[in-house]
Amino acid sequence: QGTRDHPPAHTALRDRLLAAVVTCFKRHGAAAIDTPVLELRETLMGKYGEQAKLIYELQDQGGELLALRYDLTVPFARYLAMNKVTNMKRYHIAKVYRRDNPATTRGRYREFYQCDFDIAGQFDPMIPDAECLKIVHEILSDLQLGDFLIKVNDRRILNGMFAVCGIPESKFISTCSTIDKLDKMPWEEVRSEMVEEKGLSPEAADRIGEYVQLHGGLDLIERLLQDPKLSQNKLAKEGLRDMKLLFEYLTLFGIVEKISFDLSLARGLDYYTGVIFEAVLLQQENDHVDVPTSVGSVAGGGRYDGLVGMFDPKGRKVPCVGVSIGIERIFSILEQRVKASGEKVRTTETQVLVATPHKHLLAARLKLITELWDAGIKAEMLYKKDPKLLKQLQYCEDMGIPLTAIVGEQELTDGVVKLRDVTTREEVRM
Amino acid sequence: QGTRDHPPAHTALRDRLLAAVVTCFKRHGAAAIDTPVLELRETLMGKYGEQAKLIYELQDQGGELLALRYDLTVPFARYLAMNKVTNMKRYHIAKVYRRDNPATTRGRYREFYQCDFDIAGQFDPMIPDAECLKIVHEILSDLQLGDFLIKVNDRRILNGMFAVCGIPESKFISTCSTIDKLDKMPWEEVRSEMVEEKGLSPEAADRIGEYVQLHGGLDLIERLLQDPKLSQNKLAKEGLRDMKLLFEYLTLFGIVEKISFDLSLARGLDYYTGVIFEAVLLQQENDHVDVPTSVGSVAGGGRYDGLVGMFDPKGRKVPCVGVSIGIERIFSILEQRVKASGEKVRTTETQVLVATPHKHLLAARLKLITELWDAGIKAEMLYKKDPKLLKQLQYCEDMGIPLTAIVGEQELTDGVVKLRDVTTREEVRM
Repeated sequence: QGTRDHPPAHTALRDRLLAAVVTCFKRHGAAAIDTPVLELRETLMGKYGEQAKLIYELQDQGGELLALRYDLTVPFARYLAMNKVTNMKRYHIAKVYRRDNPATTRGRYREFYQCDFDIAGQFDPMIPDAECLKIVHEILSDLQLGDFLIKVNDRRILNGMFAVCGIPESKFISTCSTIDKLDKMPWEEVRSEMVEEKGLSPEAADRIGEYVQLHGGLDLIERLLQDPKLSQNKLAKEGLRDMKLLFEYLTLFGIVEKISFDLSLARGLDYYTGVIFEAVLLQQENDHVDVPTSVGSVAGGGRYDGLVGMFDPKGRKVPCVGVSIGIERIFSILEQRVKASGEKVRTTETQVLVATPHKHLLAARLKLITELWDAGIKAEMLYKKDPKLLKQLQYCEDMGIPLTAIVGEQELTDGVVKLRDVTTREEVRM
Repeated sequence: QGTRDHPPAHTALRDRLLAAVVTCFKRHGAAAIDTPVLELRETLMGKYGEQAKLIYELQDQGGELLALRYDLTVPFARYLAMNKVTNMKRYHIAKVYRRDNPATTRGRYREFYQCDFDIAGQFDPMIPDAECLKIVHEILSDLQLGDFLIKVNDRRILNGMFAVCGIPESKFISTCSTIDKLDKMPWEEVRSEMVEEKGLSPEAADRIGEYVQLHGGLDLIERLLQDPKLSQNKLAKEGLRDMKLLFEYLTLFGIVEKISFDLSLARGLDYYTGVIFEAVLLQQENDHVDVPTSVGSVAGGGRYDGLVGMFDPKGRKVPCVGVSIGIERIFSILEQRVKASGEKVRTTETQVLVATPHKHLLAARLKLITELWDAGIKAEMLYKKDPKLLKQLQYCEDMGIPLTAIVGEQELTDGVVKLRDVTTREEVRM
């Protein structure tokens, strides 16, 4: 339940999509790593907040207590700590596992791909962070997914905001995960969860409500730097100054017009410590493709400076920032688009079918196809001793194979083959 | 335990190896599919004989009882049956899981890659089977692994042999898994396992012992077709006739000199019904590369005509034949070879590092690198506001980046960049 087989047409389209993502990651100098699907249970514990209940656990068959990885970020942090790597730019494309309620029509599965790019190391502020946003911008542009917006915020600004609104520090993280629901439910519901479930005072909730409605660009950052309350908070001020720097870099990258500093963006995971961001596709008015009304987030990420230290015996920190591309949602969109366009995705790359026009020519086919394979040409033949020519040509049409190489008695005698263009039916002897 | 992280150098080499395998699979017209890492436990039960104890099971957290896949063959058979596919040529490269005693120095892990190519469908005898052997031959040749031999046998010949040696049919499968150990232990030990553990009579064991020492080519097939006992057995005769046909096709493919018909080859899995095969690397006398004495099997496979029917509610059969490339062992060999040669495997593909020779030029670097990225060029820069030029050049040397694009005040004024070849130190302004 909540998993699926990927048939060839699906896999071919997905491989095309993943190739585009990998091309971008490599353009930014990332190396690939791979980690096991299995992690020690203790590695995953205490990293995902309320979502930890969704972790798949393996049965205790003797030996270590294991679980399936929930994301690629925690395994990356463990990898850095275990191997004492303090400096790395890596990508990792692999499946992760969540015992969630599957909503397969909306592209939510229990087994799904993540495509992560992360930069680990002690660097000057906001330069790697800006590159992560540039990568999101490049990928969403390359894939021609239509207009999009990248929302940006900073956990330090959120925490500062919570502090000046009178929320005790112990409730920062749980308040974050409530605010994170603002993209799915209206403020009134979020407010009542804050007051009734999280135990905030109504006044504190209302003060937060004023902030989280704000979004904008450099102007908003400047305004909040002057905000009489926020500007008094050390964390918020630090976050706002870095946000300003980030916007400078994004301007130099030429992508600032797609970025929105949005105080309602919180992200659910515990481990973020600085910049957080999320990319959403915008609904286009005259959109001929049938995109569902809410496509939701297609990329997200942020800075997590404390996670690696949790795996180091001496608690040594390695600052990290990274982005995860929501490949499954993007795939759903591309798949709908392919369907709408009527494009037939080829599932194989065969260039030529080796065919014979009459009986007793299997040996000729086997010899010719050997020549082709050994020359690196992608070739197929039907696995029949004496297939009908029509069947062979039909196979080419079904599979989109562009050429047929035909050998009959005459061709054998003349030492040639007849090459036929499947679409135009033109033939040449060669 | 028994799993491992793959660091960038490892992943880069493995990706190169997998690309070579995929190229071959695509040359033979295969489409890719993907199936979940999780399977229902009942899907895996009764398919692997004695090896079933090595299956990883998931904890019962409510819902279905799940396990991690043990190979890619059983999931493929389930896929065909579930989707009512009766005709397919597919490849699948993915990780599988076995709770085996890890022997990591010999390349045996609990999580490892399998690379499978399979042909499903009702076809004329031995044509797809021969193609599987051609694929093994192509891959082992392409990878330049040195001399190799592909051993071939047929379960029908084995079963016929067991019958004429007086073994009851109920013991065929368990006798097969004993014979399968002949490549690891001497005949005497195998014989005593047969007699003491599997309960065969000493006479039956000795008669088997005579057969399993035979190996050869067409001549041996002809001889066994005349064998007074074997030729009386219907199954054995069918197997021998098909073996003869196989050798004809392999001759046309031009690969017969690497094939050995070997009566000691049995293969451990329950589900084989016809041709079985296994490729082994041969030790070369003046081998400068330090290959361990026994590299063992690097590819294997066979025909399994009954497996799909086990998943079909009406038991409808889909004949299949396939091959699995032992990528982990091949990887170990390639890795040793790379080490021995001193070749440095690049882990990234970065073409140019954008550098500045003095302070206050971060904006110039960000602008130039944007131009490069947007033009599809793989470019990096250091994440420092004011890195020293020497540090930047050192980074290029460490990472194997061939070019540095340098912008200083002078270049900015002149509207040029200085392009430096990292190895030769030649510079051009452009």
